Amino acid sequence: MKIGKLVLIGCGPGPADLLTFRAAARIQASDLILYDRLVNKEVFEFANDNAELIYVGKKSGDGGRQQADINTKIINALQLGKVVSRLKSGDPMIFGRATEEIAAATYCGADVEIVSGVTASLAAAADSGIALTQRDEIQSFIMTTARKAKDLNVPDWSQMARPGTCISFYMGVAQAWQIQSALMAAGVPGSAPADWVERAGQTNMRTVSSQVHRLCLDAKAQGISNPAVLIVRYPFSLAKSKPVENAALSGSQIKMR
Amino acid sequence: MKIGKLVLIGCGPGPADLLTFRAAARIQASDLILYDRLVNKEVFEFANDNAELIYVGKKSGDGGRQQADINTKIINALQLGKVVSRLKSGDPMIFGRATEEIAAATYCGADVEIVSGVTASLAAAADSGIALTQRDEIQSFIMTTARKAKDLNVPDWSQMARPGTCISFYMGVAQAWQIQSALMAAGVPGSAPADWVERAGQTNMRTVSSQVHRLCLDAKAQGISNPAVLIVRYPFSLAKSKPVENAALSGSQIKMR
Repeated sequence: MKIGKLVLIGCGPGPADLLTFRAAARIQASDLILYDRLVNKEVFEFANDNAELIYVGKKSGDGGRQQADINTKIINALQLGKVVSRLKSGDPMIFGRATEEIAAATYCGADVEIVSGVTASLAAAADSGIALTQRDEIQSFIMTTARKAKDLNVPDWSQMARPGTCISFYMGVAQAWQIQSALMAAGVPGSAPADWVERAGQTNMRTVSSQVHRLCLDAKAQGISNPAVLIVRYPFSLAKSKPVENAALSGSQIKMR
Repeated sequence: MKIGKLVLIGCGPGPADLLTFRAAARIQASDLILYDRLVNKEVFEFANDNAELIYVGKKSGDGGRQQADINTKIINALQLGKVVSRLKSGDPMIFGRATEEIAAATYCGADVEIVSGVTASLAAAADSGIALTQRDEIQSFIMTTARKAKDLNVPDWSQMARPGTCISFYMGVAQAWQIQSALMAAGVPGSAPADWVERAGQTNMRTVSSQVHRLCLDAKAQGISNPAVLIVRYPFSLAKSKPVENAALSGSQIKMR
């Protein structure tokens, strides 16, 4: 029996027209389609009539067992010689747990193809008109998750928040206060722009423009809920305006003598 | 005279089939198409017969004047009521200098639409099978440029290189030694994976898998040239293996007493 093929496909942030032509072609060539919760069902129109579709969206809190089930489904189908498409929202290589599924396919000797998609941060930037980098102002763009890894704390956001940086926090609503505290503690000016983008890329998207010193307050007041990304920008020019604050700080230090 | 519309379109990393359906539709509806050097000319097949195509790719070193020329072209066409498409490789909001062109359109009261595209790092990850995040191992992904901003140094890479992080350096070939030095100085283990991906997403792409302690050597030996991204991964498990190095270091400190 010829072994099948696994294709990890990024379906983008929601609307079917943000799918790539390659993703559509690979969906069409699939025997088995495993799809996540946030994947737009309109993309199934590209599937051929004989394809089997299985929903494998995860409920939170039970990620380990559910992922094992998905891996088993992939391996069983590959061993029957099937072409398996694994449809993920956004891009498969960003917060897509691709490593485990690539390992499952590699384990049974199957080829793996990965089709890139538009990740949520890019759609959030496009819909809200926020450039994620800016000449002479923002040279680095960071995507980070607000979810804890096993036995680990949340990422050390205070270390990331350097002048010249834009940070996009995925799924950060519940951690809004932790994010705000970490950024303020790291010296990010309270006036730095912090934009909540809810349902990025979708027709019912919403942007709430806030600032670092009140990003938690505004999330609460506006009822922001996931899926949402929070985009915080710390351009060099805001860092340059900091000597006023530093002068005040050094003034108080002089008093202490 | 009705004012026109500006559409910034991400054309992805190269192959025409990594274009989104939305990008194709917007190209088709354009009167004037301004395109960059790395945009695949196959996407012009979507343009209507009456559309005017102008190449506005930049030679390096003269970015300021060339960008001003592009802005002028955009404004002139918008004031004639034209729909102007600005085709960029990758995604318009990542290293795409979108802010200046959005400002030009806003200046003359035109609407701006932004169509996301697959940025080079995502294509590099897909083609080389490198996941940019990994459960319990890598929680943050950073895209940064190796190009200097005006009056500023290159980004402070040593600050970014924290355990649990993956960093993608755009156009970093000339700065390979600076990158390697900064990462080693920051305590990134020399054995951390560092993969060069040349011409990500294109049919003639090439991956050279290296490690932090020899990423510069391998770039030279293999003749890596731009467009290339360098993907450095620093998973938590590599940081956990560091106490051996730290013990050696503290040993030498004890000797100094």
